[in-house]
Amino acid sequence: MELLKSRIIEQGKAIGNDVVKVDMFLNHQIDVDLLCEIGNEFRKIFDSEKINKIVTIEASGIGIACVAAQYFSVPVVFAKKGANRNVGDNIYKADVYSFTKGVTTTIGISKDYLSSDDHILIIDDFMANGKAVHGLINIINQAGATVEGIGIVIEKGFQPGGDALRSLGYRVESLAVIKSIDNGKVVFG
Amino acid sequence: MELLKSRIIEQGKAIGNDVVKVDMFLNHQIDVDLLCEIGNEFRKIFDSEKINKIVTIEASGIGIACVAAQYFSVPVVFAKKGANRNVGDNIYKADVYSFTKGVTTTIGISKDYLSSDDHILIIDDFMANGKAVHGLINIINQAGATVEGIGIVIEKGFQPGGDALRSLGYRVESLAVIKSIDNGKVVFG
Repeated sequence: MELLKSRIIEQGKAIGNDVVKVDMFLNHQIDVDLLCEIGNEFRKIFDSEKINKIVTIEASGIGIACVAAQYFSVPVVFAKKGANRNVGDNIYKADVYSFTKGVTTTIGISKDYLSSDDHILIIDDFMANGKAVHGLINIINQAGATVEGIGIVIEKGFQPGGDALRSLGYRVESLAVIKSIDNGKVVFG
Repeated sequence: MELLKSRIIEQGKAIGNDVVKVDMFLNHQIDVDLLCEIGNEFRKIFDSEKINKIVTIEASGIGIACVAAQYFSVPVVFAKKGANRNVGDNIYKADVYSFTKGVTTTIGISKDYLSSDDHILIIDDFMANGKAVHGLINIINQAGATVEGIGIVIEKGFQPGGDALRSLGYRVESLAVIKSIDNGKVVFG
């Protein structure tokens, strides 16, 4: 998605060989016009009529998922982080390890909002090692629901998450794949 | 907003005399069609052309704010919770006490995304004691920006947050004000 790549080049902050921050337009300040373009693009890519629900994870996935969901006319369900959350015990859970923070977080979705009839599109802002998406798939599998696809805004192609999921047979579509970050310069794949 | 009140009656889960859960359509599973109606309603209420940014707080405010922002054609900035977040030291901070969880959380917004030129609409899903909104106002004041209004989806009118803010001169507009919760029955004000 060329518009997105331009924004990453113009407004992203690449740091060292590993980090690109897109706080300016995606995950702290959010350019909602860009989210509309992103949502529309996901709709074009995932044109399956089967998709009846979008699943994401708090926090920065929520805005992207909610705007995208308008193009699919489906509801969003977001996985909550942490145990002491006001959702009761009636919950599917999975542990997610964050390399960035070096901690494991339990994420959960209420059993009320996932069922074996659901055909899910997973949406998230970033894919690096893919641990968050693996956690969501784990939860979706517990519910007996079907993962129809995984839509990622920015994939770090030099980290293993995306290809590991593709090798498991999942359809992973990333709107921008970063091949490398070389001393503050982003190179797309 | 009658549509919202109907949904609260039909799909909310009122518990005891204090709690109403709207996980079914607002803050776990999200009915994005309803969010569009909510966003459109906020636009009708806050028709000031001055508003150039919507500020909210993670997590459940983000979806509401992003969909509403489309009706205002402005960006969203959301306050992040916790200290160890990837936003650097260049940050306005405030402490927010949660009565539900009994803990104080530090919330923050990068100094890059708030300035004295900003005219802010604060949006959040719930207002009870108002501590989260007070934290956001504190941060907005640190930036020298102006709070043009506060849009709340559901206000617990029997708790002091909304009226305390109104008595300070803020324009607080809530789409549904709950007057009381009586043994599992919601009564609107």
